[in-house]
Amino acid sequence: MTLHTGRHFLQIPGPTNIPDRVLRAMDMPTMDHRGAEFAELGFAVLSGMQRLFRTGQPVIIYPSSGTGAWEAAIVNTLSPGDKVLMAETGQFAVLWRGIAEKFKLDIDFLPGDWRHGADIGQIEAHLAADKTHRIKAVMVVHNETSTACVTPPLEVRKAMDRVRHPALLMVDTISGLGSLEYEHDAWGIDVSVAGSQKGLMLPPGLGFNAVSEKALAVAKANPGMRSYWDWQDVIAINKAGTWPYTPAINLLMGLKEAIKMLEEEGLDNVFARHKRHSAATRAAMKVWGLETQCQDPQAHSPALTGAVMPEGHDSDHFRKVVLENFDMSLGTGLNKIKGKVFRIGHIGHFNDLMLMGMLSGIEMGLDLAHVPHRSGGVLAAMDVLKGRDVVPMPKVAVA
Amino acid sequence: MTLHTGRHFLQIPGPTNIPDRVLRAMDMPTMDHRGAEFAELGFAVLSGMQRLFRTGQPVIIYPSSGTGAWEAAIVNTLSPGDKVLMAETGQFAVLWRGIAEKFKLDIDFLPGDWRHGADIGQIEAHLAADKTHRIKAVMVVHNETSTACVTPPLEVRKAMDRVRHPALLMVDTISGLGSLEYEHDAWGIDVSVAGSQKGLMLPPGLGFNAVSEKALAVAKANPGMRSYWDWQDVIAINKAGTWPYTPAINLLMGLKEAIKMLEEEGLDNVFARHKRHSAATRAAMKVWGLETQCQDPQAHSPALTGAVMPEGHDSDHFRKVVLENFDMSLGTGLNKIKGKVFRIGHIGHFNDLMLMGMLSGIEMGLDLAHVPHRSGGVLAAMDVLKGRDVVPMPKVAVA
Amino acid sequence: MTLHTGRHFLQIPGPTNIPDRVLRAMDMPTMDHRGAEFAELGFAVLSGMQRLFRTGQPVIIYPSSGTGAWEAAIVNTLSPGDKVLMAETGQFAVLWRGIAEKFKLDIDFLPGDWRHGADIGQIEAHLAADKTHRIKAVMVVHNETSTACVTPPLEVRKAMDRVRHPALLMVDTISGLGSLEYEHDAWGIDVSVAGSQKGLMLPPGLGFNAVSEKALAVAKANPGMRSYWDWQDVIAINKAGTWPYTPAINLLMGLKEAIKMLEEEGLDNVFARHKRHSAATRAAMKVWGLETQCQDPQAHSPALTGAVMPEGHDSDHFRKVVLENFDMSLGTGLNKIKGKVFRIGHIGHFNDLMLMGMLSGIEMGLDLAHVPHRSGGVLAAMDVLKGRDVVPMPKVAVA
Amino acid sequence: MTLHTGRHFLQIPGPTNIPDRVLRAMDMPTMDHRGAEFAELGFAVLSGMQRLFRTGQPVIIYPSSGTGAWEAAIVNTLSPGDKVLMAETGQFAVLWRGIAEKFKLDIDFLPGDWRHGADIGQIEAHLAADKTHRIKAVMVVHNETSTACVTPPLEVRKAMDRVRHPALLMVDTISGLGSLEYEHDAWGIDVSVAGSQKGLMLPPGLGFNAVSEKALAVAKANPGMRSYWDWQDVIAINKAGTWPYTPAINLLMGLKEAIKMLEEEGLDNVFARHKRHSAATRAAMKVWGLETQCQDPQAHSPALTGAVMPEGHDSDHFRKVVLENFDMSLGTGLNKIKGKVFRIGHIGHFNDLMLMGMLSGIEMGLDLAHVPHRSGGVLAAMDVLKGRDVVPMPKVAVA
Repeated sequence: MTLHTGRHFLQIPGPTNIPDRVLRAMDMPTMDHRGAEFAELGFAVLSGMQRLFRTGQPVIIYPSSGTGAWEAAIVNTLSPGDKVLMAETGQFAVLWRGIAEKFKLDIDFLPGDWRHGADIGQIEAHLAADKTHRIKAVMVVHNETSTACVTPPLEVRKAMDRVRHPALLMVDTISGLGSLEYEHDAWGIDVSVAGSQKGLMLPPGLGFNAVSEKALAVAKANPGMRSYWDWQDVIAINKAGTWPYTPAINLLMGLKEAIKMLEEEGLDNVFARHKRHSAATRAAMKVWGLETQCQDPQAHSPALTGAVMPEGHDSDHFRKVVLENFDMSLGTGLNKIKGKVFRIGHIGHFNDLMLMGMLSGIEMGLDLAHVPHRSGGVLAAMDVLKGRDVVPMPKVAVA
Repeated sequence: MTLHTGRHFLQIPGPTNIPDRVLRAMDMPTMDHRGAEFAELGFAVLSGMQRLFRTGQPVIIYPSSGTGAWEAAIVNTLSPGDKVLMAETGQFAVLWRGIAEKFKLDIDFLPGDWRHGADIGQIEAHLAADKTHRIKAVMVVHNETSTACVTPPLEVRKAMDRVRHPALLMVDTISGLGSLEYEHDAWGIDVSVAGSQKGLMLPPGLGFNAVSEKALAVAKANPGMRSYWDWQDVIAINKAGTWPYTPAINLLMGLKEAIKMLEEEGLDNVFARHKRHSAATRAAMKVWGLETQCQDPQAHSPALTGAVMPEGHDSDHFRKVVLENFDMSLGTGLNKIKGKVFRIGHIGHFNDLMLMGMLSGIEMGLDLAHVPHRSGGVLAAMDVLKGRDVVPMPKVAVA
Repeated sequence: MTLHTGRHFLQIPGPTNIPDRVLRAMDMPTMDHRGAEFAELGFAVLSGMQRLFRTGQPVIIYPSSGTGAWEAAIVNTLSPGDKVLMAETGQFAVLWRGIAEKFKLDIDFLPGDWRHGADIGQIEAHLAADKTHRIKAVMVVHNETSTACVTPPLEVRKAMDRVRHPALLMVDTISGLGSLEYEHDAWGIDVSVAGSQKGLMLPPGLGFNAVSEKALAVAKANPGMRSYWDWQDVIAINKAGTWPYTPAINLLMGLKEAIKMLEEEGLDNVFARHKRHSAATRAAMKVWGLETQCQDPQAHSPALTGAVMPEGHDSDHFRKVVLENFDMSLGTGLNKIKGKVFRIGHIGHFNDLMLMGMLSGIEMGLDLAHVPHRSGGVLAAMDVLKGRDVVPMPKVAVA
Repeated sequence: MTLHTGRHFLQIPGPTNIPDRVLRAMDMPTMDHRGAEFAELGFAVLSGMQRLFRTGQPVIIYPSSGTGAWEAAIVNTLSPGDKVLMAETGQFAVLWRGIAEKFKLDIDFLPGDWRHGADIGQIEAHLAADKTHRIKAVMVVHNETSTACVTPPLEVRKAMDRVRHPALLMVDTISGLGSLEYEHDAWGIDVSVAGSQKGLMLPPGLGFNAVSEKALAVAKANPGMRSYWDWQDVIAINKAGTWPYTPAINLLMGLKEAIKMLEEEGLDNVFARHKRHSAATRAAMKVWGLETQCQDPQAHSPALTGAVMPEGHDSDHFRKVVLENFDMSLGTGLNKIKGKVFRIGHIGHFNDLMLMGMLSGIEMGLDLAHVPHRSGGVLAAMDVLKGRDVVPMPKVAVA
């Protein structure tokens, strides 16, 4: 067993730090998922998730990883041979494409350099060229967790509307929901995909789909094979506050508390807090001389930051030095940027001093791992946190 | 919120009572599922589950309900149009058939009366008649949770062997594993299906498949569409102690502790304890004059008991009286026996006095709900528990 | 480590079963006991305890056992050589006398047979005879936990008033508060003594004094040596929501939740529930043929019951048999009734089915330990619980 | 309720951060404190505490604050009028003197400036002058929590031995035990006083006395009044693994786990870790230009640091700014240094990155509160932590 002399710093971009209140809410006797006491919980989390997704439409909650919620989006609405348009924003786009391939979709995959969000112009042009509307769905990743670049779903929707393309708009906001602004209804999203272990501050084990009326109609007409992921069954039985199969009861107990915490803070404050920590992190990196993986200043993720290692230095070696010396987990570079990038999560249950602990660990780790850098990144981060440049930290209420 | 002045008696046949040790083990900071500390946990639960299934073969653990593990068994090994043989042991057989239908299998469904286990002779005859081996899989429910009748998987295997039928043998032991003897390897099971919220004493949220070499070979050759449920990917990455997508980390922490508890008690003692509680329950029912739903004395489930209501009395009304007066949840009758049967769970983290509290609640409830019965069932149950008829309760170790 | 295959039945008359909500409330990061967040907690428990004691006077909360709160009552108000009047209701009266002796008080100890509450007439006569008012305090045990006999403090007060005796009235309600009616102000109590681990449903570790204006005045004038237990200091600093020394913060967190639970249920319902369980327990004992230790039918404790063993049978052997076979702890006979009596706690977080589990364990234990008895006590208890004879169980709220 | 968007930084010098493992160990059903399962726990914590105090003598564990353990030391060994020698090291020496006064001891209080440990030469001279050995006890504070100066108990012992003075040596190591080297037997301590909420990483609620054979003999001969604090009774009943009155059971469960954690890390590593964090803190303060309250470089406490505010700046205003902006609690200046000093706890369950988060909060707070300082203290602290100057951080074990 690993020895921890204090709290481990879990600074991967998910799973994220779980608040004690949420852990304790899950640490309660489980219950009859067909009884009245459970139904109260069921209704509470279903309506709470609608508020988080900002939707009046159904939200389907699965006992699954976020990956499962991706698969659900596909099998409910699409059939083998259906053409879809995806944008290569990074590894999670690649993984989603992998699932689409397994379900034999015909994928137009717009190439990307993993250092920007999706190219909205390219998407628009591609859709405009699809005169016969063979493309059934446009699938984008909102907060690309492998690169820390954001693609604004509303811009995708506007592009689709400009060319009057009837495809469904599907958005993976697994690491976005609860950390970045998100508007399922107002932005015209058809299928939103999310998971529990990021901004929702829960352990992994819940996947989510929010679905527009249009997506539901498409699903109803879709003869494709599906059972576990089938929206209709779940939505029907949700009306009684329960699920067609045994739901992940204790995770739902935690979800209720997590929603309560996000709403106590206020979603706008939550989003501002993430931006603030993102800005402070980038300020530190600038001093250190580390490039951000994301190269579009408008697209920096509030939830995490990708740091590019100087040539000749391995990011996984650096991560190992940090873990061994400072009991902190950082995210690895994924796929083609493995060894080249490490990822810094500043998402979920987090505050200024946790951030400073984390940044100090990085600055010390750079030194111990002999990675060339300028010291003093932490001072630049403190300058940001002292509130000169960004939204101020909401003050803790003190009587 | 419901008021509980003491502990709720959760006596449905799952989710079951969760030990404090297991809840507390899950109530810990989550961790990096790609790190060394997690890998220790991953290896521990993978090998632990092999010990519980009594197999040297891979066990796949899904973030899912047990239903998901059913679906996994199907999509890995079967393709649309494949013929399978199922036995109508009760509602869970019916539900599994429903999934099979959604995946367009061609189902031979041997009818049953919901009061016996599967008819082994009928299975054997049906397989014998399948000279061309069109049947690809035989699918049975080990412990039918809707009727409390057990079908012995080993007898099914023997029948298959007698007629030299090459079909895969798939067994749903969702409510069996951890409560009844189960031998994945020795009994020649190809795919075992289980869930976390029954004998494993965990919250719902984990599904399991144990898979024979033969099943793996069939899966490898199966071109059918699947992603989330795909065994190959999971098994490959399990070699590093982790999973292809984010696993339900905190549930796995609980699983590790639950396995530890089952092994501290000893699986044989666990099984004997369940039998003992089952016998005591039936002794009480005999006095009350309530028929067991299961009519085969050899097939009574150690994990739960189905009680048939006297004509003219509604089991759900009775359950409501019990819940409102005694804060105890009993299981409803499912599907065609709705209103006619209630189900008594004596599965998982349980002991003699919890059983007696439960039986007392039933006896008092029968009276309050004006259900005709003889009193004194609890005395008969105590006679059994005092150890005259069955395996004695292993004594608590006292220094 | 002891193996528990289900929940241990903790049926001693304290410490009692702790609700999960209370345990979870204590299982939170501790805090700065000089900060504003703590002050909120401090004020909440101080006013909550006033509501439970039914007093507008200060309640002093100590990090201590109930024994410490006894000592506090003495050292604040009395000096060596002061005469006090005590009644030998049982072992806890004897223990309190022991403390009084250590502080060199001059004790009139009215003898008792350990099978009744204090003799009010005898107290009155004794006080009447004390023409010069040498007696400074009358000290009685409200709910004598060694015998399960109740002494009504109001009757003591009336007797004192009838003879116009100015002594202080001190009442040990350690196992009474939160289980039996108690009225610090209305009953004219000067010093009430309580502890956390009984009706308050907390772990041991907190002691309480509720103090009348008169007691405070006496204390102020008392030159005796004291520091830790000194009321003045605590009361002064309580005005700021904190304590003169570091309080038992996490136990106070639990206390806040426990008060909340008692008030959700309603104190009157709490008291009725205890009476109901006491009546059911005695009904079972009558059938078994076991005498109650308490012989005054008006004085039976709602919180616990003392059972007298038949001649020639050792109660501690019986308790051992019950513990080893049924994982249940019963209370031992104390001091002069050691081996002759066992005590049954039905106090705190408790309900009908927990009671029935407990009574079943006793009935089975009597058999296994070869103690002569009639069987069927549990049936008699169920007759009571079905509500024919006593206050009905408040129904669980079901939506 | 206060809103916490991440973990509160509890950086007062006690109560300290409690490890999850310890909180979870306390969050378990309580038990019969007269049963065998409890006795196992009782023996475990009694022997564990002997190992932490480094003594073969009895350790008495009270349900009390540390203050209670002070009082226990006095009332067991001393009588009104007894002369004792104390050294004014700071507020905790003053408070202890206050208790001694309440118990009417005759106190020689060697004055101090609150910026050094006790003056050993002065103690020696004073004892040498006491030819008739009227002084019955020398009482010193090991780690003076108000000033962060350490007084080495071994040096006091040597001074006493040099002048052959037979007084008892009593040491308050409330904030020392578990953080600084301590040797009850080897250093010739007669009575050690400790509490749970500092280096032992527990909530407040337990007080400790470790007692030499000589102290026990003195106590046995001491006719003074005492009950709750009486060593004899406790030691006698501890032989059965239990206590004369109900112990604080769940805190003892936590204590067992805390001892386990300290021993897993190794006490030497624990002490080195505290020194390391103390050195890093002082390095930061040097850059900021803040004086340490302790002016003896040999006497700096490993457990906490006192920081002197620049003239004209109020430390409590500064603390308020830090709390409101960064959700961190720092310790106030006590008594005569109120408003002039703030105290930084780096004690207990703690690591490098928690320390850096804390120091960052101080550096930012100095700026926000307009306290004159040089920035970059955090860089100096990182230089220390990177291991150039002190004992290296034991690496986390990684498989």
